Amino acid sequence: MNTVEYLKLGWCELCLNVADLERSLGFYRKLGFNEIEVATDEGWAVLEHANLVLALYRGHIKENLINFRGGDVFKIAEELKSSGLELADEAHIEEDGSAGFTIRDPDGNAIYFNTHPGEGEV
Amino acid sequence: MNTVEYLKLGWCELCLNVADLERSLGFYRKLGFNEIEVATDEGWAVLEHANLVLALYRGHIKENLINFRGGDVFKIAEELKSSGLELADEAHIEEDGSAGFTIRDPDGNAIYFNTHPGEGEV
Repeated sequence: MNTVEYLKLGWCELCLNVADLERSLGFYRKLGFNEIEVATDEGWAVLEHANLVLALYRGHIKENLINFRGGDVFKIAEELKSSGLELADEAHIEEDGSAGFTIRDPDGNAIYFNTHPGEGEV
Repeated sequence: MNTVEYLKLGWCELCLNVADLERSLGFYRKLGFNEIEVATDEGWAVLEHANLVLALYRGHIKENLINFRGGDVFKIAEELKSSGLELADEAHIEEDGSAGFTIRDPDGNAIYFNTHPGEGEV
């Protein structure tokens, strides 16, 4: 463990782009995941097992995402830019009113920061 | 929340197949991840931020993995097969003495169960 005070990115959800939500739900239920929230009519579900929060999306995302939620998105974007990192897009307000931006790690994995109004900083 | 008693899969690490470990470490350090264990000479590092445990591997894995660790791997494999799921490989002892098997979700994402001797069930 190092002792650097770290950015509060929020909590993490792993978001999977699924082709068939019911099929994926059936699979992860068999693995013993607990359902946190399921909105099959809207094409998404959030499940959990141990420390993994898994969000399944059909038709909402183009690729799997590491998603941090609940942080101060605009502040995080500024701090990452100050440290020399390049964002994939600028922090902005999404159509649903949440704040968001994306950054890619050196191998191209997408990390999406997204916080809805009322989602507190953790 | 449902009340189904769930399988104890262990805790989850997201494993990323990275091309350049130092470069990836530099990136995730800037994001404020804490180092749990770093073995650059062996080509791997484990970091964490909030509920995300992130393992970076150079030359060890062929693709990104959802990795559950610490569970009873052979028991989990049997229970998943009993529930009608097909494993990508049978539970086996790896070269390093750990127990492991892989299953793929309906979209092809690899979920790897792996427990080393002495890693307790959570």
